Amino acid sequence: MARANRDEPPFDTVAIVGVGLIGGSLGMAARKKGLATKVIGIGRSEPKLMRAKILGAVDEYSLDLEHGAREADLVIICTPVRTIVPTLQKMVMHLKDGAVVTDVGSTKREIVRDASAIVPAARYFVGGHPMAGLEQAGVERAKADLFENATYVITNAEDTNLGALGKLTEFAEGLGARVEVMSPQEHDAAVAVISHLPHAISAALLHLAADTQRRTGKTFRLAAGSFRDLTRISDSPPELWSDICATNSDFIVHTIMGLREVLDTLASALKAEDDALVQGFFEEARDIREAYQRIAR
Amino acid sequence: MARANRDEPPFDTVAIVGVGLIGGSLGMAARKKGLATKVIGIGRSEPKLMRAKILGAVDEYSLDLEHGAREADLVIICTPVRTIVPTLQKMVMHLKDGAVVTDVGSTKREIVRDASAIVPAARYFVGGHPMAGLEQAGVERAKADLFENATYVITNAEDTNLGALGKLTEFAEGLGARVEVMSPQEHDAAVAVISHLPHAISAALLHLAADTQRRTGKTFRLAAGSFRDLTRISDSPPELWSDICATNSDFIVHTIMGLREVLDTLASALKAEDDALVQGFFEEARDIREAYQRIAR
Repeated sequence: MARANRDEPPFDTVAIVGVGLIGGSLGMAARKKGLATKVIGIGRSEPKLMRAKILGAVDEYSLDLEHGAREADLVIICTPVRTIVPTLQKMVMHLKDGAVVTDVGSTKREIVRDASAIVPAARYFVGGHPMAGLEQAGVERAKADLFENATYVITNAEDTNLGALGKLTEFAEGLGARVEVMSPQEHDAAVAVISHLPHAISAALLHLAADTQRRTGKTFRLAAGSFRDLTRISDSPPELWSDICATNSDFIVHTIMGLREVLDTLASALKAEDDALVQGFFEEARDIREAYQRIAR
Repeated sequence: MARANRDEPPFDTVAIVGVGLIGGSLGMAARKKGLATKVIGIGRSEPKLMRAKILGAVDEYSLDLEHGAREADLVIICTPVRTIVPTLQKMVMHLKDGAVVTDVGSTKREIVRDASAIVPAARYFVGGHPMAGLEQAGVERAKADLFENATYVITNAEDTNLGALGKLTEFAEGLGARVEVMSPQEHDAAVAVISHLPHAISAALLHLAADTQRRTGKTFRLAAGSFRDLTRISDSPPELWSDICATNSDFIVHTIMGLREVLDTLASALKAEDDALVQGFFEEARDIREAYQRIAR
């Protein structure tokens, strides 16, 4: 997307609430790529904010939500999923005319619905989800190129302001990201399959292997590459996953049921000793993976 | 395990049937570490055998199974799972007195049962499964240190000869591997959970994501690290997985049912909006993963 005026950043002052890995990287990228004239970091821990400033993630910082709200043309809320709307609630009456507010939460339906409901006239909420990194890692791992070629979902709900959506798109593309505009519903359905279900599976596989390990004492010793690959993501913070699950539980339950059906097909083929069907199951999966790799790149 | 006589290799002549990644690496390691005085490669493709010789995997090679069988003190059958017993069948009458035969197949019950039944008196079959690499990759990727710190399962069935098991253990430890002796039953139950189920899950997740992709056209674009991690192993050759599944189908079906139960627990907690239970599910999984990493190392 070409800028209306390439000399002017899409937003003048950008406030980032919660300067961790994502918030910090947004600040670094916005400053480096000239997407804002000033980046203000907002948080509750002064040492953390000072570190963000030293690392070049923000121009200045504040412990005061209202201060950031009053100045900012774009507010990006980078707090954990379930504190996004409460954070917005605290600052919403101080937002200036025309201000755009977005978030980086991993689920979108609940956040977009509740946030849109509390934003007053002439202030605009547009949901966002840059798909890079973990929300709870620290600013120390932030980097300006975190969003380079990453997918950045921007949600388009019925009451989304088109002008605000356009400016946020310009900002996200300025970060180097590939923007996908979709409804909160479409987003949540997709991430249920490609992110939330994988985490549920990974945890379930660990529970199951632990059962066998307890009985035989030998299972873990035999665990090779495939087990390591599938369980690596279970390192993520459990409280993060609990929040994500709580705000997308219907879709996650739906994908669990879907997975069960697919695995039932395989189990039936195995019981029937239908080698052709079993081989077809794995062949088709390999073909799908090839298609996915072409599409995802 | 200390060698009875450190100057003497556990076996004099070692014949390797099927010189691919595993067979080739076994040959390289045996030669480099002085675990054999001569390594003979046996196969059906002379160019492949020549390559194995040039790469230092074998001292000499033969297209003739009988030749290898007549000379060898240890025969290692490295063919695909379902051709191991037919291969043994062809050479079994030519094995010399006291010869030990082993295999590297990914499942053990069927192979050990059928192989033990056809080996004549004073010849010994001991099942093996070095847990490193894929059976169907080529000799070009073979390396002498492939088994360094890898787990090498050696099966102990009711009729397994203890002397033969001891010599094979010495050989495997000489390769640098960590030997785990267990029954074919124990082995197959463990690999069902830590290797076969992960492959089934990976394929199932791809099938499920493809469904969503077909409906929305956007799912794959959103696929991030977790989806990539969980589906990477679906690159493995489908015919290999079909064979493995066919020889371990009962245990694989059992683990599929087990996984369903664990995921049902999570689905119920999600439906009941029991945040504490959901968070506990992910917390316990992370703890299990930490335990696994300590045990596996």
